[in-house]
Amino acid sequence: MSYSCTKTFFSRFCTDELKIEGNSYGSVFSSDILPSLGARINRSTKLGNYIISPFDPRYRAWEMLLVVLVVYSAWICPFEFAFLSYKQDALFIIDHIVNGFFALDIIMTFFLAYVDSRTYLLVHDHKKIAVRYLSTWFIFDVCSTAPLQSLSFLFTDHGGGIGFKALNMLRLWRLRRVSSLFARLEKDIRFNYFWTRCIKLVSVTLFAVHCAGCFYYMIADRYPNPRRTWIGADNPNFKQESVWKRYISSVYWSIVTLTTTGYGDLHAQNTTEMLFDIVYMLFNLGLTSYLIGNMTNLVVHGTSRTRNFRDTVRACTEFGARNQLPPRIQDQLLSHICLKFKTEGMKQQETLNELPRALRSNIAQHLFLPIVQKVQLFNGVSQNFLYQLVSEMEAEYFPPREDVVLQNEAPMDVYILVSGGADMLTHSGHHQVVVKVLPGDTFGEIGVLCDRPQPLTVRTTELSQILRLKRSTLLSIIQANPADGQIIMSNLFLVIFRFNKNIGLTTI
Amino acid sequence: MSYSCTKTFFSRFCTDELKIEGNSYGSVFSSDILPSLGARINRSTKLGNYIISPFDPRYRAWEMLLVVLVVYSAWICPFEFAFLSYKQDALFIIDHIVNGFFALDIIMTFFLAYVDSRTYLLVHDHKKIAVRYLSTWFIFDVCSTAPLQSLSFLFTDHGGGIGFKALNMLRLWRLRRVSSLFARLEKDIRFNYFWTRCIKLVSVTLFAVHCAGCFYYMIADRYPNPRRTWIGADNPNFKQESVWKRYISSVYWSIVTLTTTGYGDLHAQNTTEMLFDIVYMLFNLGLTSYLIGNMTNLVVHGTSRTRNFRDTVRACTEFGARNQLPPRIQDQLLSHICLKFKTEGMKQQETLNELPRALRSNIAQHLFLPIVQKVQLFNGVSQNFLYQLVSEMEAEYFPPREDVVLQNEAPMDVYILVSGGADMLTHSGHHQVVVKVLPGDTFGEIGVLCDRPQPLTVRTTELSQILRLKRSTLLSIIQANPADGQIIMSNLFLVIFRFNKNIGLTTI
Amino acid sequence: MSYSCTKTFFSRFCTDELKIEGNSYGSVFSSDILPSLGARINRSTKLGNYIISPFDPRYRAWEMLLVVLVVYSAWICPFEFAFLSYKQDALFIIDHIVNGFFALDIIMTFFLAYVDSRTYLLVHDHKKIAVRYLSTWFIFDVCSTAPLQSLSFLFTDHGGGIGFKALNMLRLWRLRRVSSLFARLEKDIRFNYFWTRCIKLVSVTLFAVHCAGCFYYMIADRYPNPRRTWIGADNPNFKQESVWKRYISSVYWSIVTLTTTGYGDLHAQNTTEMLFDIVYMLFNLGLTSYLIGNMTNLVVHGTSRTRNFRDTVRACTEFGARNQLPPRIQDQLLSHICLKFKTEGMKQQETLNELPRALRSNIAQHLFLPIVQKVQLFNGVSQNFLYQLVSEMEAEYFPPREDVVLQNEAPMDVYILVSGGADMLTHSGHHQVVVKVLPGDTFGEIGVLCDRPQPLTVRTTELSQILRLKRSTLLSIIQANPADGQIIMSNLFLVIFRFNKNIGLTTI
Amino acid sequence: MSYSCTKTFFSRFCTDELKIEGNSYGSVFSSDILPSLGARINRSTKLGNYIISPFDPRYRAWEMLLVVLVVYSAWICPFEFAFLSYKQDALFIIDHIVNGFFALDIIMTFFLAYVDSRTYLLVHDHKKIAVRYLSTWFIFDVCSTAPLQSLSFLFTDHGGGIGFKALNMLRLWRLRRVSSLFARLEKDIRFNYFWTRCIKLVSVTLFAVHCAGCFYYMIADRYPNPRRTWIGADNPNFKQESVWKRYISSVYWSIVTLTTTGYGDLHAQNTTEMLFDIVYMLFNLGLTSYLIGNMTNLVVHGTSRTRNFRDTVRACTEFGARNQLPPRIQDQLLSHICLKFKTEGMKQQETLNELPRALRSNIAQHLFLPIVQKVQLFNGVSQNFLYQLVSEMEAEYFPPREDVVLQNEAPMDVYILVSGGADMLTHSGHHQVVVKVLPGDTFGEIGVLCDRPQPLTVRTTELSQILRLKRSTLLSIIQANPADGQIIMSNLFLVIFRFNKNIGLTTI
Repeated sequence: MSYSCTKTFFSRFCTDELKIEGNSYGSVFSSDILPSLGARINRSTKLGNYIISPFDPRYRAWEMLLVVLVVYSAWICPFEFAFLSYKQDALFIIDHIVNGFFALDIIMTFFLAYVDSRTYLLVHDHKKIAVRYLSTWFIFDVCSTAPLQSLSFLFTDHGGGIGFKALNMLRLWRLRRVSSLFARLEKDIRFNYFWTRCIKLVSVTLFAVHCAGCFYYMIADRYPNPRRTWIGADNPNFKQESVWKRYISSVYWSIVTLTTTGYGDLHAQNTTEMLFDIVYMLFNLGLTSYLIGNMTNLVVHGTSRTRNFRDTVRACTEFGARNQLPPRIQDQLLSHICLKFKTEGMKQQETLNELPRALRSNIAQHLFLPIVQKVQLFNGVSQNFLYQLVSEMEAEYFPPREDVVLQNEAPMDVYILVSGGADMLTHSGHHQVVVKVLPGDTFGEIGVLCDRPQPLTVRTTELSQILRLKRSTLLSIIQANPADGQIIMSNLFLVIFRFNKNIGLTTI
Repeated sequence: MSYSCTKTFFSRFCTDELKIEGNSYGSVFSSDILPSLGARINRSTKLGNYIISPFDPRYRAWEMLLVVLVVYSAWICPFEFAFLSYKQDALFIIDHIVNGFFALDIIMTFFLAYVDSRTYLLVHDHKKIAVRYLSTWFIFDVCSTAPLQSLSFLFTDHGGGIGFKALNMLRLWRLRRVSSLFARLEKDIRFNYFWTRCIKLVSVTLFAVHCAGCFYYMIADRYPNPRRTWIGADNPNFKQESVWKRYISSVYWSIVTLTTTGYGDLHAQNTTEMLFDIVYMLFNLGLTSYLIGNMTNLVVHGTSRTRNFRDTVRACTEFGARNQLPPRIQDQLLSHICLKFKTEGMKQQETLNELPRALRSNIAQHLFLPIVQKVQLFNGVSQNFLYQLVSEMEAEYFPPREDVVLQNEAPMDVYILVSGGADMLTHSGHHQVVVKVLPGDTFGEIGVLCDRPQPLTVRTTELSQILRLKRSTLLSIIQANPADGQIIMSNLFLVIFRFNKNIGLTTI
Repeated sequence: MSYSCTKTFFSRFCTDELKIEGNSYGSVFSSDILPSLGARINRSTKLGNYIISPFDPRYRAWEMLLVVLVVYSAWICPFEFAFLSYKQDALFIIDHIVNGFFALDIIMTFFLAYVDSRTYLLVHDHKKIAVRYLSTWFIFDVCSTAPLQSLSFLFTDHGGGIGFKALNMLRLWRLRRVSSLFARLEKDIRFNYFWTRCIKLVSVTLFAVHCAGCFYYMIADRYPNPRRTWIGADNPNFKQESVWKRYISSVYWSIVTLTTTGYGDLHAQNTTEMLFDIVYMLFNLGLTSYLIGNMTNLVVHGTSRTRNFRDTVRACTEFGARNQLPPRIQDQLLSHICLKFKTEGMKQQETLNELPRALRSNIAQHLFLPIVQKVQLFNGVSQNFLYQLVSEMEAEYFPPREDVVLQNEAPMDVYILVSGGADMLTHSGHHQVVVKVLPGDTFGEIGVLCDRPQPLTVRTTELSQILRLKRSTLLSIIQANPADGQIIMSNLFLVIFRFNKNIGLTTI
Repeated sequence: MSYSCTKTFFSRFCTDELKIEGNSYGSVFSSDILPSLGARINRSTKLGNYIISPFDPRYRAWEMLLVVLVVYSAWICPFEFAFLSYKQDALFIIDHIVNGFFALDIIMTFFLAYVDSRTYLLVHDHKKIAVRYLSTWFIFDVCSTAPLQSLSFLFTDHGGGIGFKALNMLRLWRLRRVSSLFARLEKDIRFNYFWTRCIKLVSVTLFAVHCAGCFYYMIADRYPNPRRTWIGADNPNFKQESVWKRYISSVYWSIVTLTTTGYGDLHAQNTTEMLFDIVYMLFNLGLTSYLIGNMTNLVVHGTSRTRNFRDTVRACTEFGARNQLPPRIQDQLLSHICLKFKTEGMKQQETLNELPRALRSNIAQHLFLPIVQKVQLFNGVSQNFLYQLVSEMEAEYFPPREDVVLQNEAPMDVYILVSGGADMLTHSGHHQVVVKVLPGDTFGEIGVLCDRPQPLTVRTTELSQILRLKRSTLLSIIQANPADGQIIMSNLFLVIFRFNKNIGLTTI
């Protein structure tokens, strides 16, 4: 990974948490800190001296640096183990620098507050932190950091003994950091779930391939008879080949086995290799199943919306055909369902319903108050009254040419046209347009307030957005505000008067 | 693909969109054009001069033609790259014609309106279209269309250099068109989802196999020592073989690897081949998982209905057996569930419930008004009253020999028999048929309107369709229309009189 | 398959349909016969002369016989094609007998009523049946039955030409019968879904293996150079081997490829074989995905109940631990959830809720009337009153030591103990048993009918079944039946009197 | 398995059942004992003399011992069959001891009560137990236990005949015990479902691999020509190799085939081996599908929560962006959804809702009574009144800076702050903090009890837990307890008085 690339990658992760952490209290609840029902929240989330918060962006940056180092360690450890003899060269120095970083992290962990898994509170007591760390992961972290192989020089004259080399593998303990990184990324909606998951799976697969390849090579390398090894069966002088060639062969064998391709050009030749191969293939069976399971999960999730849409449209089409509905109704049906599916995809109404009352009212006021204030029927009513009305309104889309209100239907709702347009029709003989409804107009109010069947059909002429207010809600709000009710009734007479003048009728 | 076949295929896709586009406003909302809640819809969807709508059927036909050309390009590009040396022959001319079509499309894109992904509005401003195209895909489209290999003749004396050949691979950029075609097809209910999806997956698989085969052959073709190549290990003079034979060998190897069969008769012989093989196998792991995931998704979706049916029937059977219900009730139970599953499969009631009131009323009037008008009980009532009644009715199927109303039960609904037949029974000692219910008759109305327990049991004699009207709905509609209520009450006395005469009783 | 085995298999399928067909009207709706909403059902399901019903058990038996013959045909056709030269021996005669059965079936189909897929009605008009059959499958059925190979003797001197042999493969058209059989079996709850599905998949797999093996052998058999064939590479004189050995080799190769094991001991040697292998492997990719998809579907379905149970119990345990509930309440919680899961597994309440009112009342009367009649509180009330009460009751299980009613709680329900036992407790200081509740006793009725808080806590002592009646329901039924209400109130005084005497109190 | 390991494993399983069995009645319902609705429970669960309960911990321990022996038998049986000639050595003695244990179990089964699968009752009648056992599994158990091979010595001079050896395979019948153990473990929430399931699958896979390896070796061992066997093709003197080497080779071949790797270094050489291989590969196809299906199931289950969270957050973010909500509302939205997801993860409200009334009241009293008792508004009311209030309260979490009540909103609920903090704000011009709400304070009560719009906005300042009581519930409880109502109203005046003094207003 080049420097610039690393940097972008890096800065991205530093701002890793959900935006809500930007609030001053965000860090209190965006993690798992939540008291039990009926208990008192521990409010002292202010941290003591020399204590690092796990949500501090600088600590996050440090964590990301360590993850990069872990990836390096994960690759180099098995490789060194299998292919390299121990020498005090450049690689040796890099190794020690990397270890230094991890040693620093061990020290920092003694100053890092943690979230108690039972009480969900942030613990920032030095003693508790130390006890917890010492009793859990401290010993593993030390073992995975200490330069054990170098220490071995003190006791033996060469550090390349297989046992001491194996100690290096303890560094793989560091991989738990990558695991927790992925767990966090999966919950972050700024990253695509599909790709986060895929990268995780590819990483696991590549690591498995790399490790198995290295280990398999080591078995061949140590076997006394090179002709009876998987790599030496073809070419007994394989140890003279370049590291690159040997490494590629190992990885090639490893992946041929993992994907169960199994060409058979390279295969186990002695019992040790067979044993390792048995274990590796069993592991592969699990890994492959896990990959397929994950992919299935992603596919099922990804296609569910399209399938639902298809099922709904099919049900509608069949319903229309079976009952021989006239084409106009079938068209209305289909276009309504298509529109509904689209707005449901946005989950607007659903999202609103899940919110608490006050928040919902807040949103409704922000969205609908400017429109409702201009409505003629509510001209002059008090602000309180409007607030209460607006909180109860529901927005709906109607596709073009759909009936919103039917003539002679019992009045159930008052409608306000927000955008689009509609016609009022009479149904004497054939449909005849009486008056056009413009954005900002109400309809259905005559039926509701005079308690009589709807006088006219209302049909949209284009894609319209309409606010709906239930009859019972309107009446109960008017009852609670009698003064506003009188203003509305006098507005209503003006509306009816103008309406009658428009349609040239005098009796309604 | 022969000409006639292509033509059918073609004309099919030209009428690609949902039928609702046939409306004059259809194109406005059948795509993703939808304003935000509370905002004003941009009404000027009338397009300017020299602007092509993306929903124009002629443009769709042009798009389909391009898709066919893309499929050709996708096949020929890797093939030319690997197997053919560059010559100015027939293939050369065809290539340039195909490129001509795509060049034309680049020009057309400057006149093509697009849907803004944020505002969901159709943008048809020449400048905006140009800016958007130039800043996004223009450069890719030009690169994938320009005859770069031909241009190379101007600079070098032969056009077959590997670098210049690789430039041809840029044509694969065109594949994004196929991808968007499949996305559209999946949402079109006129095509079976299962098969659309399968064809997509097969296409992807075949393309992967073809590309890998061609590329693998090219590696062998360029390798200095033919004996150390996958194809030359058996037959070092492979270059003398016919193109057909070499192509089949490549594809054979490719698919043996992709399906993880891995016979091993053809396998990587040198490090370059191993490297490519590693990458290809990793890709295959992903592709295979993706195929299995998709198939699982389709299977789960396809069998869900049968499984639900089985679960329901099993629960019923167990319920009956555990509680030792008499066989007659068990039969009723099972037949009711079977019938319900069938009508639920049609999702009739569910479809109706999801619709807005006016549309639902419209459908109910179309379906039930002719029947309800002939009902004796509603003889002489006003049309408005009937409209309101019909909107509230629900249709239900009853299997034969099922009880609809029980004697002495509290009255909750009025029923109208639409089709089939039923018996009214008394339950004194054993069941005795009192009177037959014929299509168009009502029952349960005496209980509801006189507010007394049901006088008789009603049991269907054959598969019956029954309209149900809730007691509370009926009473509230009658309350709102007192004149019609009086007509109904006088009709009711006629009904009771005739009923009593029929069953030979005088006191009810 | 031996004779006796075949017979059992046979008789089983003859009674293939759901039991509800046993009703005289069963066959009308157990198939897909269902009219559209609002339309009239075609009642003339009585069949004409010389017309066979598709639901006739004798026709079902005939169908099963044909299925057995189809299985034989499916196996013998590819085998004959690949391994046998045409001779007029025993096999020839068996073939002609089998063809005779299918010829008979073609004739019978002209007399077989069918269900119209659009109107869902049984069509039994001779002309319509003939037109439909002639215009759809007649030509295929004839081609798959006619002894085309025998006819070929008339034109050529030997019937073994590859073209004429291929005509025999038309017999595989008969397999559609097996497909429709499995579709029917999957909906039949008498057969385990898992195993039905598995057998279907195994059959498809075996057939694919058999066909591919036979076809692959044929390619080798016809190839001019036996040394360049998959089977002859090892043993060029393979044609001298026994049919059995050659068949096993073919099937072995076929299954090694299908399962993607791909040992490589037998593999394609020439271009024809490679081409076939490519097609077969692509097919296998689809088949394997389909198998895995099906298995996943079955596993998900099979384990869903256990997983739900675990999730619920875990949620409960965590809820208790987090809120530090006292152990007694935690025990009650857990035991209630366990019990609920068990009764939900039986889906008793759910099944009841999905039924229409009359059927539900019927079941409730059958189950609960004998118990409610003996209850002291309802002593002397009218039968009608009891009917109405019983229809509204709900049965619930309570685990031992769970509180059913709490002292001082607002009265919401009346309870009748059906089985088990309970204690009435006062909560002054510590719990003290006041009186024991025996099966047939009511409790909570004092609170409900006197409209006061519950005087005592009721706690079960063992697993108890309790009927619950909502307060509002009881009061509204009493309101509708004032006479019975008075009887109940006088019973109530007796109950209170005895109750007070029992607990030694006089003021309640 | 070493001794200490076995012991831990052992003691763990002995306490195998759910904790609820600790109750004295636990064993009655924790198994499947449940009477049918409306029937009488059989209460005599007291067991007779010399009858062992299947729920007795000592019997459970005995069962676990047998499971360990079964695992040993399952491994040794195929191994002996294939690799060992029959000798009277240590293995022979161990075999007989193991058989002795199983013989003892056969005898014990005659004294073991069982749960009748139809009536769900525990049967402890000696005769019924004997009849059931003799008519079902007795004969299998005896055959799998009797030392048939030893008996064979009585009739033949050597016990190694293949037929007699095959009789030993009857011991595999014992595996049904392991199957029932896993079925029980899957339902036990103390064990992780994922790992229980994985161990089960790994066990099945290993057993299949072991059996197939042994059987395949036996085929080679018996084949007359060692050169034409899978193992002898390379090394015809394979019988001289150590058992260990031959066993590893067999298992290696077996797993290479099972995982469909199929290197091809070892493959079938003769028809018998091909036949076995065909059967084994078909079995593997099923087993692999089953493994993948299970893994998919586990993955889907494991990731469902993360996916739901992501979907919800995405819907919210899109809703905010599309409607251009101000950042403050967007923050509230997002933080509310995050919090809700977390509390929903605990399923607290859901768990409560599924419980019966009395249990729910019990929990609510335990959790909320201490808090509600200290509330000023309820100062001096009766305990009964408080009980009724508390049962109806709902706890909710509110993230910091979220509005709980809006100024001028219609009053719907009374709130009690349990923990956290909130501000009361006026909205004249910009927000101004009027008074702070502390834990134990109520708000919203003025609006509800005086029936007027909320005078002030209430906004949380930190993560707060709030109890909510619906207006209608409060009013109906007050109506039922007029005395307490008066106390509350007088408390209310004190509250208003102090409230007015705090905010410096006198008119409210």
